[in-house]
Amino acid sequence: MFLKNYWYAAALPGELGERPLARTICGEPVVLFRTEGGTFAALADRCAHRAAPLSLGTVRGESIECGYHGLRFGPGGACVKIPGQDSAGAAGPAVRAYPLVQRWNWLWIWLGDPALANPDTIPALSWFDNAAWTPFQLYFHVQANWQLFSDNLLDLSHVSFTHAKSIGSPEVSEIPLKTWVEGDRVFNRREMRGVTPGPFVADWGGFTGRIDRISSTEWSPPANLAIEARFADASNEIVVMVVNPITPETETSTHLWMGWARNFRLDDAAFTARARQENEQVLHEDIVVIEGQQSRLGADSAFRPYSIKADAGLVQARRIVARLLQAEASNAA
Amino acid sequence: MFLKNYWYAAALPGELGERPLARTICGEPVVLFRTEGGTFAALADRCAHRAAPLSLGTVRGESIECGYHGLRFGPGGACVKIPGQDSAGAAGPAVRAYPLVQRWNWLWIWLGDPALANPDTIPALSWFDNAAWTPFQLYFHVQANWQLFSDNLLDLSHVSFTHAKSIGSPEVSEIPLKTWVEGDRVFNRREMRGVTPGPFVADWGGFTGRIDRISSTEWSPPANLAIEARFADASNEIVVMVVNPITPETETSTHLWMGWARNFRLDDAAFTARARQENEQVLHEDIVVIEGQQSRLGADSAFRPYSIKADAGLVQARRIVARLLQAEASNAA
Amino acid sequence: MFLKNYWYAAALPGELGERPLARTICGEPVVLFRTEGGTFAALADRCAHRAAPLSLGTVRGESIECGYHGLRFGPGGACVKIPGQDSAGAAGPAVRAYPLVQRWNWLWIWLGDPALANPDTIPALSWFDNAAWTPFQLYFHVQANWQLFSDNLLDLSHVSFTHAKSIGSPEVSEIPLKTWVEGDRVFNRREMRGVTPGPFVADWGGFTGRIDRISSTEWSPPANLAIEARFADASNEIVVMVVNPITPETETSTHLWMGWARNFRLDDAAFTARARQENEQVLHEDIVVIEGQQSRLGADSAFRPYSIKADAGLVQARRIVARLLQAEASNAA
Repeated sequence: MFLKNYWYAAALPGELGERPLARTICGEPVVLFRTEGGTFAALADRCAHRAAPLSLGTVRGESIECGYHGLRFGPGGACVKIPGQDSAGAAGPAVRAYPLVQRWNWLWIWLGDPALANPDTIPALSWFDNAAWTPFQLYFHVQANWQLFSDNLLDLSHVSFTHAKSIGSPEVSEIPLKTWVEGDRVFNRREMRGVTPGPFVADWGGFTGRIDRISSTEWSPPANLAIEARFADASNEIVVMVVNPITPETETSTHLWMGWARNFRLDDAAFTARARQENEQVLHEDIVVIEGQQSRLGADSAFRPYSIKADAGLVQARRIVARLLQAEASNAA
Repeated sequence: MFLKNYWYAAALPGELGERPLARTICGEPVVLFRTEGGTFAALADRCAHRAAPLSLGTVRGESIECGYHGLRFGPGGACVKIPGQDSAGAAGPAVRAYPLVQRWNWLWIWLGDPALANPDTIPALSWFDNAAWTPFQLYFHVQANWQLFSDNLLDLSHVSFTHAKSIGSPEVSEIPLKTWVEGDRVFNRREMRGVTPGPFVADWGGFTGRIDRISSTEWSPPANLAIEARFADASNEIVVMVVNPITPETETSTHLWMGWARNFRLDDAAFTARARQENEQVLHEDIVVIEGQQSRLGADSAFRPYSIKADAGLVQARRIVARLLQAEASNAA
Repeated sequence: MFLKNYWYAAALPGELGERPLARTICGEPVVLFRTEGGTFAALADRCAHRAAPLSLGTVRGESIECGYHGLRFGPGGACVKIPGQDSAGAAGPAVRAYPLVQRWNWLWIWLGDPALANPDTIPALSWFDNAAWTPFQLYFHVQANWQLFSDNLLDLSHVSFTHAKSIGSPEVSEIPLKTWVEGDRVFNRREMRGVTPGPFVADWGGFTGRIDRISSTEWSPPANLAIEARFADASNEIVVMVVNPITPETETSTHLWMGWARNFRLDDAAFTARARQENEQVLHEDIVVIEGQQSRLGADSAFRPYSIKADAGLVQARRIVARLLQAEASNAA
């Protein structure tokens, strides 16, 4: 089940060049494209005529032309041309159009009731449009349910184990986590004093010994995470903002986005390249475990998790999601 | 659902060498083979003993020997040898045999009631056995329902879009189509005067400017298409016969045959090789779109197509198929 | 359906090095590992905390540590450490542990009632721990139901056909088989005098002409086979013991083990290497046919086999399995 009345990250603007992009979001096949005039648009990826994917077609001016029989649809979903006959106009065929907004260098799609689509509710990720920060963005296609990645990021004790060779500090999992809820948001905070940085972290900050490490996590529904990670020794402090908009593809697959912004070495392109590569490795360490979880959960529907102290945040977030899903179902009925 | 009391193209004779050939047709696994005496035969591809595929076996004289325990079956399906015991004769095991006829350089199989199998009802494709024409044949394995390819060939307006870079004329889709029905057959005709030939067509006829282009299509059930394509300018006229016997493999996959015969450059082997390659490209342009359609239709059973003028022929053909399926179901009940 | 109160070959001891091993057995995902102290253990491959596969974790002393959040479980399944909190002890989380015994250079797992797990009922394969014999072991992963391989080995008439180019004698299938049952065991014996050895057999014994060939097969449930193969001419006799513990992975896939022990050329390592390679070829000849059977049986649940004389042994074995499955179901109810 998916929450529908929320914005989901759908693509990076740079993914939409001359070719349309096909992407399934919350089980719905969507075509994303940019018109020649520069408008970003999202339509159902299924021609109203005979169901050919519009994503196999071509952008023509302000519309997308089906690659099969040439029907054209505008960003609003109306058919603007049927070859061989008068265009059907208002009574003609149409495909569903989805609100799509560009913000913080992501394109955000709204799959629910269009009347409720308010861009002000897009998660605030200002570090990705701010000269004081140097950002990059990564995309991963994961064969697992979307909530498993929320769980992952709401319990960073896993960095001691899953990321022992990259960003982990062995002490993380033993240091208590503070968790609290504000409205529909869940917050975690862990202050780690005098811990060993993992090799990647040591390199980022030029740390040669133990450091203080403070992680502050904010989760908002359906599955948006923002983590402020502070690393400091006596002579240096660096801050990394890691954000993860998580977008369901299907019940068992996920579009996982990572945004990584730093407040140091701002103009060091070689460092950016290295940090990209390192974070790809980190995420792949997660993906192996999470796809393994999905495989085990899919094979045993009777499994009930055993909760430990470190689960406090993710248990809260799952309760909120369950309540919001219930509310959307009630509203629909 | 499949029509059973019809001939389907099953293989090219040249596909049956020393090895038997496994091919699933209308959901039934079939083994096709040529006996040492030259008889072509089609049997259920499942040994009566313990279900091993006979296609893994070996042709022995006038029978096929199972590669597991050595039972042999003749072209009529009767077991003619059981190792280690007297042959079972009339009361022994047998596998289903299917009528199989060689005509027009295809092998045609009959999956329905054998008493109704009349070779005179095999589609007449005389261009493939006629010295006035130079033919070649292509085979494609497509992940889509068989009727989607009938649809494709009954609405050639798609050549303007799907084949824009190969055989399309941009004007095709704007020129009205004449459609009529005779019994269980559907006919289309489109006369295009002074149109731009696609690059392949220009090369075939040596055309340097605009041409007249006349396409005449005949569809007969279940899914046999014959298209006469005439291309002419003031100094030259060429004719190509394109035939497509379409054979269901499963509900969502298809054996697509193409026969292509020309009345020009009859002995030009290099031209044949080039035309083969070009038509493979053309069909792959179709296959991408049609497999996309299948994917979208498979994911959304509620989809209802929106009919446009160009659909006139395919709508008629689908009505005839629906009526014939109903008739076969009634006869079976 | 699987028999549960039996020992199944789960792994070779050499497969468990520093890394745990994931293997699904009778539909249950299992992690196999060796502790630092040398104990072999088998646990459900699903952390009690949040279902991550323990096989992605790490052996730590006498326990396995989950690679996600670091919970540790001992060979008996109890959780011995939860990071960040007191270990839960007896009331804490646990995963299912399976009895696991090393014998004859295999690890044997018991999936049924642990109270019934008696190592004395492990099949006696003494040739694999006996200086008078030189053994090797092979593993194959097969996409077919486990009983199809029992069938295969209980009717060696197939060697005339499936293995015609490797170990077959063309006469095998024509020579009668003697079959008898003792309790839950099935025995086959075929004495073949003056037959042609297949090329591999001729090489093994240095045979230049016809040989006597005596095959004695013992099957015990669920699917353990031991075949004594004697090959002799006037000047030489060699004996090969071929054993096949067969372990279901799922209903349609199987872990197939082969043990091959000889009483000749005991110290000839080059011969061992060649015989390994030859037996891999032989088994692959079987696997092609058996996966073909599975494919045909899976597509046609109405298929009923036609029994021939050579089936006498496998029919008895299938009756015993059916009776034992019934008994286990009755006991469970």
